[in-house]
Amino acid sequence: MFMKSYRKELWFNTKSRRELINITPAIEEAVEKSEIKEGMVLVNAMHITASVFINDDESGLHEDFEKWLEELAPEKPYDQYKHNTAEDNADAHLKRTVMGREVVVALTEGKLDFGPWEQIFYGEFDGKRSKRVLVKIIGE
Amino acid sequence: MFMKSYRKELWFNTKSRRELINITPAIEEAVEKSEIKEGMVLVNAMHITASVFINDDESGLHEDFEKWLEELAPEKPYDQYKHNTAEDNADAHLKRTVMGREVVVALTEGKLDFGPWEQIFYGEFDGKRSKRVLVKIIGE
Amino acid sequence: MFMKSYRKELWFNTKSRRELINITPAIEEAVEKSEIKEGMVLVNAMHITASVFINDDESGLHEDFEKWLEELAPEKPYDQYKHNTAEDNADAHLKRTVMGREVVVALTEGKLDFGPWEQIFYGEFDGKRSKRVLVKIIGE
Repeated sequence: MFMKSYRKELWFNTKSRRELINITPAIEEAVEKSEIKEGMVLVNAMHITASVFINDDESGLHEDFEKWLEELAPEKPYDQYKHNTAEDNADAHLKRTVMGREVVVALTEGKLDFGPWEQIFYGEFDGKRSKRVLVKIIGE
Repeated sequence: MFMKSYRKELWFNTKSRRELINITPAIEEAVEKSEIKEGMVLVNAMHITASVFINDDESGLHEDFEKWLEELAPEKPYDQYKHNTAEDNADAHLKRTVMGREVVVALTEGKLDFGPWEQIFYGEFDGKRSKRVLVKIIGE
Repeated sequence: MFMKSYRKELWFNTKSRRELINITPAIEEAVEKSEIKEGMVLVNAMHITASVFINDDESGLHEDFEKWLEELAPEKPYDQYKHNTAEDNADAHLKRTVMGREVVVALTEGKLDFGPWEQIFYGEFDGKRSKRVLVKIIGE
């Protein structure tokens, strides 16, 4: 039983600036293609204004996240941030910091080793352009 | 030196809604049982209203965490959150987001590779019911 | 292709209480020395008042982080925190919680598998003394 590895990129181009997308089915598909049965799955945003996190697939909660992140790190006024000279996305860097860059999930008997409600989300905070998520699996 | 893996669940049923529990001894025991000497240890909450994080085992700091999380994401009034229709735990989803779902710890010469004050905690934010933490170790 | 592992410590002693240091070159050097081509790189603060995180190497954004973290978890007045009896660094424990303890980065074909702007930072929130970061690499 030697170590194996598998790599895949997922691409997103959201219609709105902020969006939460359930990517659990895409990660499950990558796990299946990897043929790895025991190990760890790393899923990370490859951009620094986006997030990968695990939480509930419940639309009310997603509205709560939007409101809460806007309170913690408001998008506007843009000039409240030093970063916003050529860009206007400082708030997205901060929002992604709260939500996290990556998750590491255990892989057991060929499946994501999840509790009852865990779902993996891509959190876009500065969208309307092509951005990527990396899936890297190592194990045996 | 082939890759090995080890899996264990820890169960909790806290008496109060919110509680911080030092789980370092339980993780050390899992590491020992795994007989893995070099690798990585993933410890994650299997529920989306709980957290696993590393910080100081100091009771004053734990009171500070409680007060701070209540400022950032207050439990009440319940109706401030869209998620709180059938449930009342939206704040627990947000608190867990701040504290984090998981930690990954290096395993070196059969021990958790820790700095001087690092301790692993289970952070419960919607307790009084049975919930789980997953320990997954891979290495050799 | 057996599993290999590599371990390295990075030491810091910052001149100011808070500082963000780009450690990407040091991590790249560790990756090269490890001779591991496919796997995962764990980089974590070994102290509980410091952080390792991935974001943009842009000075305006770093000023935004400083201001934002001071709003979320102000350093002063010290006596607002129960932790600050013998110490004065409760805010640093909270700031590190927001920024995160660790990052896990995929290693592909011998390189950090990064998006276009990803850079790894050491975030010091209670400096002016020697503190460490751990780099642990596993793979083949």
